[in-house]
Amino acid sequence: MNESVIRYILGRILRIEGILLLLPALVGIIYGEEQYVVYLIMAVSTFVIGYVTSIKKPESNVFYLKEGCVTTALSWVLLGLFGCFPFFITGEIPGFIDALFETISGLTTTGASILSNVETLSHASLFWRSFTHWIGGMGVLVFMLAVVPLSGGSNINLMRAESPGPSVGKLVPKVRGTARALYIIYFIMTVLEFIFLVAGRMPVFDALCTSLGTAGTGGFGIRNTSIASYSVYCQWVVTIFMILFGINFNAYYMIILGQVKKALAMEELKTYLAIIVVAITLITINIYNTCTGFFDALTKSSFQVASIITTTGFSTYDFDLWPSLSQVILILLMFVGACAGSTGGGIKVSRIIVAVKTFLKETLTYIHPKSIRRLQMDKHPLDHEVIRSVNVFLITYTMIFIASLLILSIEGKDLVTTFTAVLATMNNIGPGLKGVGPTGNFSDFSIVSKLVMIFDMLAGRLELFPMLILFHPAVWQSTIHGSQHKNQ
Amino acid sequence: MNESVIRYILGRILRIEGILLLLPALVGIIYGEEQYVVYLIMAVSTFVIGYVTSIKKPESNVFYLKEGCVTTALSWVLLGLFGCFPFFITGEIPGFIDALFETISGLTTTGASILSNVETLSHASLFWRSFTHWIGGMGVLVFMLAVVPLSGGSNINLMRAESPGPSVGKLVPKVRGTARALYIIYFIMTVLEFIFLVAGRMPVFDALCTSLGTAGTGGFGIRNTSIASYSVYCQWVVTIFMILFGINFNAYYMIILGQVKKALAMEELKTYLAIIVVAITLITINIYNTCTGFFDALTKSSFQVASIITTTGFSTYDFDLWPSLSQVILILLMFVGACAGSTGGGIKVSRIIVAVKTFLKETLTYIHPKSIRRLQMDKHPLDHEVIRSVNVFLITYTMIFIASLLILSIEGKDLVTTFTAVLATMNNIGPGLKGVGPTGNFSDFSIVSKLVMIFDMLAGRLELFPMLILFHPAVWQSTIHGSQHKNQ
Repeated sequence: MNESVIRYILGRILRIEGILLLLPALVGIIYGEEQYVVYLIMAVSTFVIGYVTSIKKPESNVFYLKEGCVTTALSWVLLGLFGCFPFFITGEIPGFIDALFETISGLTTTGASILSNVETLSHASLFWRSFTHWIGGMGVLVFMLAVVPLSGGSNINLMRAESPGPSVGKLVPKVRGTARALYIIYFIMTVLEFIFLVAGRMPVFDALCTSLGTAGTGGFGIRNTSIASYSVYCQWVVTIFMILFGINFNAYYMIILGQVKKALAMEELKTYLAIIVVAITLITINIYNTCTGFFDALTKSSFQVASIITTTGFSTYDFDLWPSLSQVILILLMFVGACAGSTGGGIKVSRIIVAVKTFLKETLTYIHPKSIRRLQMDKHPLDHEVIRSVNVFLITYTMIFIASLLILSIEGKDLVTTFTAVLATMNNIGPGLKGVGPTGNFSDFSIVSKLVMIFDMLAGRLELFPMLILFHPAVWQSTIHGSQHKNQ
Repeated sequence: MNESVIRYILGRILRIEGILLLLPALVGIIYGEEQYVVYLIMAVSTFVIGYVTSIKKPESNVFYLKEGCVTTALSWVLLGLFGCFPFFITGEIPGFIDALFETISGLTTTGASILSNVETLSHASLFWRSFTHWIGGMGVLVFMLAVVPLSGGSNINLMRAESPGPSVGKLVPKVRGTARALYIIYFIMTVLEFIFLVAGRMPVFDALCTSLGTAGTGGFGIRNTSIASYSVYCQWVVTIFMILFGINFNAYYMIILGQVKKALAMEELKTYLAIIVVAITLITINIYNTCTGFFDALTKSSFQVASIITTTGFSTYDFDLWPSLSQVILILLMFVGACAGSTGGGIKVSRIIVAVKTFLKETLTYIHPKSIRRLQMDKHPLDHEVIRSVNVFLITYTMIFIASLLILSIEGKDLVTTFTAVLATMNNIGPGLKGVGPTGNFSDFSIVSKLVMIFDMLAGRLELFPMLILFHPAVWQSTIHGSQHKNQ
């Protein structure tokens, strides 16, 4: 393994985090909070450590998928570790594992919280918490690629390891240009939401944090009631922007390039919107009796469907109280997740499409065994490699899910809480049902369970394999052995 | 589609069912119950209908997988329809859908009951209920193959459609001989269990019904307390025979042929036993506090693990009261199921092995991308077709599961009840948790939900595709169109 390039990249990542930590320090200064000192010190020391680590250029540019995965996984772990110190040092989150859980939850855009009363936090910490969503949403490595020149195949393998979903490959040729374009779109959309929210008389600080949380499909609220206390107008703004941030960013890229028709014809996009419409319709009918009218039911169901399918996790209502059908639909949407190439988590709509198509094709094979059908997506035949990788993803997903479920169930919490705790962290959603529902939180779990969920959040955000590989002994074999595989 | 051969086979099946219905009539006569008349009339009329339908030999022997699937699915539906009339006509189960549910539950070896008090049933009906398990366990089509000469490829395609699991192919060359051998093994093992139970002073009728239910991995008890009221010795006999009937019958076939070493070296068998040992150990530790001692905990956990992994569904204890870890383990075992080629249901151990191996191989691919590894099973390389079919099975399984879950959840029952009701019927287990737990039953569900679960039980028993295809319009297109596909 090429350790020097990994060290170099990790150093650059810490430098960036150091700079980013200046923003909450600034927020602290504006609001006259003493916590700003902690953020300032952490900003400087993180930057210095990053600077020292990356002062020496890497000796070699050899960089394969293995290096890509390890670098990505370690970057996110390091970001979490350095990012959680402010919470811990200010004493706003007394336990270190709790602080780490909250930070990883932020970075992975999960939004699962161990806090029962977020309104006691300083503005600096509230901002940092929401800002981690924004950093993690588009991916900090993508950000780095946009600003740091790297040679060799490193950028491709980094982007492949960090990007949500199986379809980024198309964008790869001009990685740097693409990374910049993505961040510009991301930035502009965040600003747009902010403007719409402020126009609806949401306080500026609230609008800022809410926009950051929506953009990253994160879900940390800065009120104990999440989004419920804001006006219906604001709830609809958030609903629409959640849906927009769950769309494959390739679509926006195409629209900017003038290919509007092509963008709107994307099968994943159409399926994603169709699922949303069907889910909203069913839930609206199902909860109609419990609401004050049709519009109220529509508002609540739209918000919750958008929040769950995009894996954001904001809430306006305790859906734990909804009837079973609505709960089952929400649980299924938790698995589905957003589009590939968006900031959302979950299995991703495109994978679901491949799975459903495989199913339909195979049923036909029983009737006409010798007919040859190739699966298609967006009118192109699907590569067998893609179909296989979807199957592998689903199997791996299930394995990690089961292992986590077994470990968490040792605690003896009820089945729904245990099941949805794994579901909500692994798919980067935030709230689950019962004990971890919209009105609950994750503080009750043991340290072991919290570590498992931290792993799940990272595995979910990084598409499983980078995190798994981190624990594989073969990766950590000596460099001598590694060089034998140089040509692989 | 070659309708004449399908008609012919279905007629032969009904003839067999007519003969089989004489047994409960005999039981009724022995116990002096008036219900014997109903069974006698049903026996005669079923036989006559079958005789008339199959009096004319088929015009053509063309018989492909499509015909095999349709014949299999229709056979099971017909068996259920004719088999449920006695329950309905005697008035012992007043609702027709309830009677059908109970019969399909018996034939598919599920053991899910709509009865809250089985002890009020006549001996004739209790016997018929348990006997359907025995008929369904090894498969009635396999039985027909053992006694009715069929020409062409029909026997192979029938056996492929009915047999549990992906591995029967090996036995195919001499279908008729194999079918006989399987039934002889099955019969002898059932008799052995009966002897062991009677030796433990279980009443003869109870021992008979329990043996039939164990052999088919069914799970209908003839007491309201299932197996709990019998002695610990009897519970252990049932435990051991449940495990034995969950083993791939190829293993017994090999042992008879003198290939003991080869039988014991089967990877699926070893994995199956390993899962059982691990599960029993974990649950024994987990429930130790709630039991009267180590042996009590071991007895309870062994019985329940054996009952669930083999998808039998007998119970000695209300495991709904056990701690979460034990419940999660049992739920996972419900998915796993027994060995392929056994009488048990579920996903099957061999499919789980293929899935786990795929997962392990793919993780390694990230580390050494160019290394080529082929999956192996029992030291032979696994055909890509097998791996693909496992993936397809898992995807199809998930689709049916989700669709059923959505429909059942309309009822508004709690999530655990709804989820485990689908799980327990689709994997042919019997009891689930909460409302459908060992002390509950399925009578509360609506007719729509019961029909969905009837479909799930059949789909689970017939490995999904035959039942799915039954609902595919392409199968029912005119014969003219069908003949265009004659060469497929």
